[in-house]
Amino acid sequence: MSRSQAAPDAVDSPLTDRLLAGLPADAVVTDPDITASYAHDMASFCPSGSPAVVVLPRTVEEVQHVMRTATELRVPVVPQGARTGLSGAANASDGCIVLSLTRMNRILEINPVDRIAVVEPGVINADLSRAVTEHGLYYPPDPSSWEMCTIGGNIGTASGGLCCVKYGVTAEYVLGLDVVLADGRLLSTGRRTAKGVAGYDLTRLFVGSEGSLGIVVRAVLALKPQPPQQLVLAAEFPSAAAACDAVCRIMAGGHVPSLLELMDRATVKAVNDLAHMGLPETTEALLLAAFDTPDPAADLAAVGALCEEAGATEVVPAEDAAESEMLLQARRLSLPALEKVRGTTMIDDVCVPRSRLGDLLDGIEQIAEKHRLTIGVCAHAGDGNTHPTVCFDAQDPDESRRARASFDEIMALGLRLGGTITGEHGVGVLKKEWLARELGPVGMEMQRAIKQTFDPLNILNPGKLF
Amino acid sequence: MSRSQAAPDAVDSPLTDRLLAGLPADAVVTDPDITASYAHDMASFCPSGSPAVVVLPRTVEEVQHVMRTATELRVPVVPQGARTGLSGAANASDGCIVLSLTRMNRILEINPVDRIAVVEPGVINADLSRAVTEHGLYYPPDPSSWEMCTIGGNIGTASGGLCCVKYGVTAEYVLGLDVVLADGRLLSTGRRTAKGVAGYDLTRLFVGSEGSLGIVVRAVLALKPQPPQQLVLAAEFPSAAAACDAVCRIMAGGHVPSLLELMDRATVKAVNDLAHMGLPETTEALLLAAFDTPDPAADLAAVGALCEEAGATEVVPAEDAAESEMLLQARRLSLPALEKVRGTTMIDDVCVPRSRLGDLLDGIEQIAEKHRLTIGVCAHAGDGNTHPTVCFDAQDPDESRRARASFDEIMALGLRLGGTITGEHGVGVLKKEWLARELGPVGMEMQRAIKQTFDPLNILNPGKLF
Repeated sequence: MSRSQAAPDAVDSPLTDRLLAGLPADAVVTDPDITASYAHDMASFCPSGSPAVVVLPRTVEEVQHVMRTATELRVPVVPQGARTGLSGAANASDGCIVLSLTRMNRILEINPVDRIAVVEPGVINADLSRAVTEHGLYYPPDPSSWEMCTIGGNIGTASGGLCCVKYGVTAEYVLGLDVVLADGRLLSTGRRTAKGVAGYDLTRLFVGSEGSLGIVVRAVLALKPQPPQQLVLAAEFPSAAAACDAVCRIMAGGHVPSLLELMDRATVKAVNDLAHMGLPETTEALLLAAFDTPDPAADLAAVGALCEEAGATEVVPAEDAAESEMLLQARRLSLPALEKVRGTTMIDDVCVPRSRLGDLLDGIEQIAEKHRLTIGVCAHAGDGNTHPTVCFDAQDPDESRRARASFDEIMALGLRLGGTITGEHGVGVLKKEWLARELGPVGMEMQRAIKQTFDPLNILNPGKLF
Repeated sequence: MSRSQAAPDAVDSPLTDRLLAGLPADAVVTDPDITASYAHDMASFCPSGSPAVVVLPRTVEEVQHVMRTATELRVPVVPQGARTGLSGAANASDGCIVLSLTRMNRILEINPVDRIAVVEPGVINADLSRAVTEHGLYYPPDPSSWEMCTIGGNIGTASGGLCCVKYGVTAEYVLGLDVVLADGRLLSTGRRTAKGVAGYDLTRLFVGSEGSLGIVVRAVLALKPQPPQQLVLAAEFPSAAAACDAVCRIMAGGHVPSLLELMDRATVKAVNDLAHMGLPETTEALLLAAFDTPDPAADLAAVGALCEEAGATEVVPAEDAAESEMLLQARRLSLPALEKVRGTTMIDDVCVPRSRLGDLLDGIEQIAEKHRLTIGVCAHAGDGNTHPTVCFDAQDPDESRRARASFDEIMALGLRLGGTITGEHGVGVLKKEWLARELGPVGMEMQRAIKQTFDPLNILNPGKLF
C-alpha cells in the first residue's frame, strides 16, 4: 500500500501529515475500506468506532513517533495485535489512531541456557511455540487462538489457555519489557535473569493492562524445557456436579495434570454437530485430563480411579498421541461449535475457587433455564475458570436481551462464590461496569490512580477497563 | 509489657497518646531499651535511627489506626517483620513509628482443594511450611532465614531461597493481598482463584515494595502438592569456570533440578572451619544438585554425567535423605561460616543470566585479589544468583573501605553482564544509589511516580529504595 492509496482528505489532515513525518508511507493507512477492518476484536455486544488512521510501525522508533504525535495532538491510540480478543479491548474509537503491532514480528533471540526468548510484540504465539520447540524448549501459554494471536496481545490481556493448570498464564512468563510510554519515552522494565527484585515490579503492571498504560515493543519471555508428549484421558459423568467432584478429588490428591478440561452436554452436542467427532452425547459432563510426566499412563490410571470414585460412568484413556490430539481438538472446537447453535455467542470467563466449581455450574444451569437459553459450558476445570457460552440469535431482540441478562447474572454468581469476573479474557469494554463490583471503591480508586500516573492525558486506549 | 513500663515523657507525647487511643497499652512500646532493639535488620553498612515508638498491632483495625495517626501527624512508619533482611530495608529512622507485624501471626486457612493458604503477615515461614505439609501441601519459598523470617517480610522483599530454580520466588506464590494504605484505608488486591485478570496487577506491585507502598495485613498464598523427598548430589570441580560450565550444560540439557547450588573454595573452607563437616577442601568449586522427581537417582545420574563432561573430578550422589540433608546443611551454613573469617561480612546478591555466571565468578576473583580480601561465593547457581560475601574486619578502616569498594565493583560487574544488582535481597538502603544505575532515568521516574501515587506524604518507609 502506498501513500497515494490513502484518502486525499486524510493525507492532508495534520494528524496524518505528522505521522508521515516519522513513518514510511506504507505504514500509515487512511483508506476507510481498510481502516474499517481494524475496527474491532472478536467480542459481541461491544461498541466500536471508525479509526482516523491505522499505523503499522516496524521499529521502536516508529512507535515512539506515533506516541509523540498522539500526545502532541491529543489523539487517542488503540493498540492492536491480531484482534482475537474477547472483551472489546482492541476496539477502535471514532477518530483514534489504531496502532497495529503486527509488523513488529521478529523473534530476536532464543537462548536455551538462559531459557529465554526475546521477541517483538507482533510475533504469533504459535510461531514462537514452534521456534522454541526446535531448541528443545517450551513456551506454555496456549490461548485457543494461538495460531492467530500475537504475543503482544497475550501480554496485553495476560492470556491463559489449556495448559495453565500446570504451567500458569502469560504473566508468569514475562520477565522484562520495553514499553513506549504515552509521551513517546522508552521504558525498560524487569530483567533477563531468572530472578530480580530491583524496584517495583512494573513488568507485571503492564501485563494485563490492555494497552492502557503503554505500548509493549519488546518482551523477554521465560521458557521451560520441552516436556514429554502429554497423554489424555476422557471421563464421562452422569452430572456436572460429579465431574466437579472429580476435579476436587484430583487436585486435593496432589496430582499435577497438564490439562484438566470440562465440556458440558450442550458443548459436546455442539461439537458433534459441527465436526461429527462421535463424542458421547448421553454424558452430562465430559472431563479431559492429561499428564506430560515421565509415566503419564500411571498418572492417568490414578486419576481415572478418582473419576470412578466420583461417579464416572466411563473412563477412557487415549491409546496414543493421535487419540490424545483428537480429544484436544474436540475441546478446542467448543467455542466455534457453540457459535453454530443460534448464530451468535457471548463467551463469559468467570473463574471461581475450584472448590466452588460445582456451585457455579449448578447456578449457570438455573440461569439458562430461567432465560430459556442454551448456555454451553466449557471450562479450564482444574483452574476453576469457566467459559459459559450464551447462545443466541442476534436478530431476535428479546433473545439478545435475555442473553445479556444471563451473561451478567453469571458474573454476579461468580463474585458471590468468591471468584472473579474474568479469569483470562480481560475487561475491555465488555465488563467494565463489572470491574467496580469486583474491586470495590478503594480498588477502583487505586486503579484509576495508576492509569493517571502513566497516561495523564488519557490517550492510551481510553474507555477500556473503566 | 504494660503501659506503665513506657517512658513517661513518651506516653505524654501527642504521638503516643494518639496511638493509645486505638491500640491496647501492651501494643505501644516507648521504653528506649526495648525500642532500640527494633532499630535495624541484619545488613552491614546501613545507617539506622532511634524509633519514637514501636507498635505491635494484632488486628487490621489496629494497623489502620496506626496509619491514620501517622498520616495525621506526618510521622514516618517503618514496617518490620523478623528483621532478618540483608539490605537495611527495615531499619528505623529517628523519630519514626516502627510497625512490627510479628503479633499478627495467624494462619487463617489452608485449603487443599484450592491449594491456597490465607495468612497474616507475622506468620513465620517455617511455621507455614510445616502447617501445609500436614495437608500434603508445599509452600516452596525458602529463604535461608526460613526458621525466623516472616511471610510479610518475604512479601516485602520478594524473597527467594534454594528452591527457586524449580519453584520460583515468593512473588509467584502471592495471589492476593489485603493492604492498609498510607492514609489507613484498606485495599484488597488480587484473588483467591487460580487465575484472574480483573484490572491492573496491584498485588505484584506490593510484592517487593519493601513496605514503601502500604502495609500488608493478609495474604492469599498459592500452594503446591508436596513433592517427593529430594535427593542431592555433590560434584567437585577443578575451577569455578568448570562448575559454571556444568550448570549451563544441566540447564541447556532440559533438566529441572529442585536445587542447583555452588560453593567456592573459600566458602567450603569456612564451613569446614565452623562445623567440621569434612567437605573436600581441595576442590575449587562444589556444586550441589537435587531432584524431587519420581526417580531422583536417575536424574542425578544424568546430571552427574554432565558434571563429568564439564570436568568434575568427583561426583558423589547422596545415598539417602540423611546424606542429602547434611549437604544442604553445609550450604545453609555458608553465610554464618563466612562471617567468622574476618568478623563481618557484606553479602552481595547479584544475579546474572546463568550463561554469564562463569564470567561473574571470574570477575569476582579478580576483584578479591585487587582488594586483598576474601570474597566467598555461594550461589543459587541454577538461577545465576550469587551471594559474593566480602569478609572484612569492621575495626580496620582501610579493610572496611576496600570491602565496600569491592561490594560496589561486584554490582557494576553484574550490570555489565546483563544482570541485576539484587536477585532476592532487595534494595533497602544498602543499594539505593545503585538502583538508578540499573533502572535508568525513565525507570526511576516511573518508580518515583508509583511511590507518589500510593504515598503522597512520603511516610511509608521513607529513604528506602530511592
